[in-house]
Amino acid sequence: MTFPNFRRAHPNVAIVGATGAVGVELIQCLEARDFPVSRLKLLASPRSAGKRLPFRGGWLTVDALDDSSFDEIDLAFFSAGSGTSKTYAPRAVAAGAVVVDNSSAFRADPDCPLVVPEVNPETLAGHRGIVSVPNCTAIIASVPMAPLARAFGLERVQMSTYQAASGAGAAAMEELRASTEAFLAGRAFQPTVLPHPYAFNLFSHNAEVDVDNGYNGEELKVIAECRRLLGEPDLRIGVTCVRVPVLRAHSIALTLEFAQPVSPDAVREVLARAPGVRVVDDRAGNHFPMPCEAQGQGDVLAGRIRHDLSDPSGRSISMFLAGDQLLKGAALNAVQIAERLFSGGTGARSPAAALAVAS
Amino acid sequence: MTFPNFRRAHPNVAIVGATGAVGVELIQCLEARDFPVSRLKLLASPRSAGKRLPFRGGWLTVDALDDSSFDEIDLAFFSAGSGTSKTYAPRAVAAGAVVVDNSSAFRADPDCPLVVPEVNPETLAGHRGIVSVPNCTAIIASVPMAPLARAFGLERVQMSTYQAASGAGAAAMEELRASTEAFLAGRAFQPTVLPHPYAFNLFSHNAEVDVDNGYNGEELKVIAECRRLLGEPDLRIGVTCVRVPVLRAHSIALTLEFAQPVSPDAVREVLARAPGVRVVDDRAGNHFPMPCEAQGQGDVLAGRIRHDLSDPSGRSISMFLAGDQLLKGAALNAVQIAERLFSGGTGARSPAAALAVAS
Repeated sequence: MTFPNFRRAHPNVAIVGATGAVGVELIQCLEARDFPVSRLKLLASPRSAGKRLPFRGGWLTVDALDDSSFDEIDLAFFSAGSGTSKTYAPRAVAAGAVVVDNSSAFRADPDCPLVVPEVNPETLAGHRGIVSVPNCTAIIASVPMAPLARAFGLERVQMSTYQAASGAGAAAMEELRASTEAFLAGRAFQPTVLPHPYAFNLFSHNAEVDVDNGYNGEELKVIAECRRLLGEPDLRIGVTCVRVPVLRAHSIALTLEFAQPVSPDAVREVLARAPGVRVVDDRAGNHFPMPCEAQGQGDVLAGRIRHDLSDPSGRSISMFLAGDQLLKGAALNAVQIAERLFSGGTGARSPAAALAVAS
Repeated sequence: MTFPNFRRAHPNVAIVGATGAVGVELIQCLEARDFPVSRLKLLASPRSAGKRLPFRGGWLTVDALDDSSFDEIDLAFFSAGSGTSKTYAPRAVAAGAVVVDNSSAFRADPDCPLVVPEVNPETLAGHRGIVSVPNCTAIIASVPMAPLARAFGLERVQMSTYQAASGAGAAAMEELRASTEAFLAGRAFQPTVLPHPYAFNLFSHNAEVDVDNGYNGEELKVIAECRRLLGEPDLRIGVTCVRVPVLRAHSIALTLEFAQPVSPDAVREVLARAPGVRVVDDRAGNHFPMPCEAQGQGDVLAGRIRHDLSDPSGRSISMFLAGDQLLKGAALNAVQIAERLFSGGTGARSPAAALAVAS
């Protein structure tokens, strides 16, 4: 048996940004999925060094990130922002590690695969040390879109998002809580993390807006990354990204126009078999995907599957999705990538097939 | 000077459902807009009878609604649900009143105009005693859609909504507050007004779902009423209605496909001149329509005006709206209808022109 991506059967693993919202989930995912970690090294800014976080029944102390942080590291998860990844990910690779990067730093780099294991695992085979985890909304949208695109041919995508605080980090989650508490108590609150009041409010995504075309950075990421994930560089995508007062699960109202007329039942059948998707579509009970039920789940919830009544051709299907931004939208997807790397980094679509290639 | 719709220059006015979320706003709108009320009669269920509500510096006592409630009433606002309107609105008309009905009871009735004064004031002329106030989402969407449809020809509408608690009434607003308080305190909370947990959560609109086509009652209202308001009985409309944890302003992500290529600047110019619309579209400042700024305002806020990147023809424009559900979505629109009735109920588009016809 060979382990083509790591030097050891039980790799030494580092997490850069271990104290952040995604970092904490990464630690928990490694433990919960029994990833064969030999040694886990937690790294963060000097400000967070010395903090202790739980792992496998004990406590690990966070170290400050520096140039020697990756000595003897086989696998490094990065989740500390694009700047940190740009500086330190190449150093980790030079030290012999494979990097799984949650930032946007390398997502457009053709040398760095952009991977959702249920969608395009075959692209992992070409990695040169850095693998990118896509934007959270692109992941959650692509998990159900990919099997539908394969089944029916996808021509146009329109989505409106309902994005949680967690996408802006742990401090934004805390700002949502604190500002809501203040609102309920009738106290004033000055936001410092997000640009607008968040208590019982919503606003256009806080990413910078391109003043020429009017799209914000989040929307442009979603378009570019969904195209890359689905292997359709010219796919027509329209998107509106909105931050809503929800803590950690994103929702998406999605309309897909296919190459042929498609029934909601046919869509439901494809999604019921799709890895990483759970169909929640109870019309009589008015029970559909909700953040409070997506939270803590690895699957993307998909429901409200119906014809888009604005398209008389019968080729357009509307649906509603919810997925945990911190899990499938970030930490879980990163660990699933590492699992694929561990099992051979192959193009096989099933874990079993991947293991067969690796052995 | 004649007052063709009322028997008196200063009509006697009744509000049915005066203690509800919309009822309270109706009282305030009448006062704030200096509507020429002679006597104001507040009506509600026997449970609410005896409550006192402020009006013009004094206090009015709420009476229980009964068959004699409309004696000497010239104008009756109804906001107590469809059942109450079906029973009592015809009785109010028989007693000589004009009814402005906030419920859905008569919205599909061809004898009852469905009116947004900025959109289709001319339809008021044919009223036979009952005028319907449209669904709140249909109002907020139609105010900017109507002038754009006139300017460019409208072929297709797609919208995803972000609807506030107030649309489900004062008890739903209180449930949002109370459940959020409980969540923050780590206490369990059992929802009784809405079917799902509301604190930091969102869910598909609580209206019953048609099990055959998958659309909920709110979505079917929005489609039917936008078509009627715009005078386009076959307009292609797709809609997803979602309840978000916001107290009283609805938001809508809207994509309009026009009959011709249209620039965002041309759309912005039409909306800047449109009555009832305020353009909030600051790309550099990332400042767009938000519920917290729509709240308490009579105008619908419109912004994020840009091409829909999924339509290469250049005919599709995406935008984002926010409007106060209790004001323009209900109480204010009702009072604006009454103002038109008072001034002659004409087809004139401007209040000045209407007054000229009435004098």
